[in-house]
Amino acid sequence: MSQSKSVVDKTLGGAGLRGQSAGSTSLCTVGKSGTGLTYRGYDISDLAQYASFEEVAHLLFKGHLPNKQELNAFEERLLELRGLPNALCEVLERLPADSHPMDVMRTGCSALGCLETEQSFAEQDRALERMLATFPAMICYWFRYVHHGVRIDTFDRSERTLGGYFLKLLKDEAPSAEFRQVMHCSLILYAEHEFNASTFAARVCASTLSDIHSCVAAAIGTLRGPLHGGANEAAMAMLAQWRTPSEAESGLLTMLAAKEKIMGFGHAIYRESDPRNVIIKEWSRQLAQSVGDDVLFAVSERVEQVMKREKGLFCNADFFHASAYHFMGIPTELFTPIFVMSRLTGWGAHVMEQRANNRIIRPSADYEGPEPRAWLPIEQRG
Amino acid sequence: MSQSKSVVDKTLGGAGLRGQSAGSTSLCTVGKSGTGLTYRGYDISDLAQYASFEEVAHLLFKGHLPNKQELNAFEERLLELRGLPNALCEVLERLPADSHPMDVMRTGCSALGCLETEQSFAEQDRALERMLATFPAMICYWFRYVHHGVRIDTFDRSERTLGGYFLKLLKDEAPSAEFRQVMHCSLILYAEHEFNASTFAARVCASTLSDIHSCVAAAIGTLRGPLHGGANEAAMAMLAQWRTPSEAESGLLTMLAAKEKIMGFGHAIYRESDPRNVIIKEWSRQLAQSVGDDVLFAVSERVEQVMKREKGLFCNADFFHASAYHFMGIPTELFTPIFVMSRLTGWGAHVMEQRANNRIIRPSADYEGPEPRAWLPIEQRG
Repeated sequence: MSQSKSVVDKTLGGAGLRGQSAGSTSLCTVGKSGTGLTYRGYDISDLAQYASFEEVAHLLFKGHLPNKQELNAFEERLLELRGLPNALCEVLERLPADSHPMDVMRTGCSALGCLETEQSFAEQDRALERMLATFPAMICYWFRYVHHGVRIDTFDRSERTLGGYFLKLLKDEAPSAEFRQVMHCSLILYAEHEFNASTFAARVCASTLSDIHSCVAAAIGTLRGPLHGGANEAAMAMLAQWRTPSEAESGLLTMLAAKEKIMGFGHAIYRESDPRNVIIKEWSRQLAQSVGDDVLFAVSERVEQVMKREKGLFCNADFFHASAYHFMGIPTELFTPIFVMSRLTGWGAHVMEQRANNRIIRPSADYEGPEPRAWLPIEQRG
Repeated sequence: MSQSKSVVDKTLGGAGLRGQSAGSTSLCTVGKSGTGLTYRGYDISDLAQYASFEEVAHLLFKGHLPNKQELNAFEERLLELRGLPNALCEVLERLPADSHPMDVMRTGCSALGCLETEQSFAEQDRALERMLATFPAMICYWFRYVHHGVRIDTFDRSERTLGGYFLKLLKDEAPSAEFRQVMHCSLILYAEHEFNASTFAARVCASTLSDIHSCVAAAIGTLRGPLHGGANEAAMAMLAQWRTPSEAESGLLTMLAAKEKIMGFGHAIYRESDPRNVIIKEWSRQLAQSVGDDVLFAVSERVEQVMKREKGLFCNADFFHASAYHFMGIPTELFTPIFVMSRLTGWGAHVMEQRANNRIIRPSADYEGPEPRAWLPIEQRG
């Protein structure tokens, strides 16, 4: 046992710390019990079915599901904390229309850290709630300013929930009850996932006792990478090419033959299935009916079948998110920013956990560079 | 052997990955050969004595010390790349005067990523050179705008080196040859230090194949923490209290008796001494003479002696940097941003190294949270 552990360490030390523990957490299990994903012991299926996103955020931040009074107070604080400072709006207006939306989120978060700096850890709860309340507005303000030329009212309180608030700001109309509910579910599914790369980046940052905006900005930048966030955007781009299930099947087989990477399938940790897939898939099926789609859902389902048949691979959380978001009229480039609005809860909870029992995260490296060598004056260099 | 390895893993997994390898590098050895610090095989003492910072940046970025032609071309590119875009100046002007200067650096870097997004890894060299050329201006533009009400000319090319450029922008006058040389030396000493926390954060971010500005912004935010960057600022704040060596001695003994943390001493990896200390200490001694100081250097030296005598601790790179920067008239709050201008070279080299042989950095966690538990409707919660 200890021998095999040692071998594993040596082999994988240089390969992304896969399977190596980098700390402990009370927040989440991935691939362990129940359907494979729990937040503080609660199964993701239960949370997705029964909870609101605000309840889940409270669970992650405060450690327990809120009672009625606590939930009401939490929701009231989040309402109160809406609205971007003028200086932040002016910063966002200066970011070009062709900016990567994740760069806009990272910059908005960072600028908020200048305007409302976390002066001590006593302010961490308030700072996190403020980010939770403003991130939907941050991306929508920029998006609608650069694309539609309007300055939206970020203080809008016509929608009580964060999911509703985002849809309202984005489309300038009250969302349907169904859209609202799908947003809540989606935000719950993406909220937390143990030591994924963006969360780990946030914890590394937190381990130097840096401020909360630095931690979240580091996480946003890390989530931006195509190996992490962005899989649902890539899935959407692929699916949008095909107009019938059989077109999708032949297109997919061609891609597989060319050994192209198909986004939205498989997982680093889950082996059999991703427990989040069945949940968002059902919402996607229902949305397809509501909006009268008879292409995208059928195409998506065929791709799922072919991937299973040809590669034995299952859909992860991202795959049916693509069609679900699309049915709600959300532009593809905003899929990953929604991930940010959601995962902020996991990042924040991990930062608080790291701070509560901190040691700086400073690993070693295996040196494989040149041996010590003598200085060579510039005239003697080749 | 394998048993003890296993025990070590278990004990230290949750404690900052101390002593655990998280990958390999060709860039740097810490505490191994020569005086204890090499960049690509060259001893830090040789580099500090003979090289320019631009030569060291070239060594880290390109893998070898430049010949005359290469160095000239590199310097010309860095001159060419000076000057902040208007939109970036407008963003910086909106960050309040009481912003943390590291938050300004993080935001400036992030906004630059919106304005000049790295579209593919083929652009990484240019993007890094652009950051190297603009970071001195980024902090000075903001600093002088919010404190002096002036918009400096960031295209200023009267100083050829980055160190000279920074001092010129900060003080609006050509620096002395000695100040210029100390800046070069300081930038060299801080350039690279293996898998320190900020560099590791940059590599975690890079491992999702995110863009270079995300990686650097993550590193800036991580360096901001008081357990990482900022030690020289803290040392300066302490030293500034004392007006004579004997006042320093009694003040320090009081702090030690109260078990206060004294910044600028000891090191996570070095055991006997920090090879960078003797170098910057000599510059500090020389600067004290040049500027006619007869307090700060003597106070610093007494603190060094007392810490050795009382605690057996040696000065690290940060301690005499405090007095050296102070003698050059650099405001204390800009010490850590200088660290950024320098360490950017190490961060950039590590990001390129990570990209060249990448696997996503995604460790595991030891779960210590609640067992699986049933959903509890809100009415039933306590």
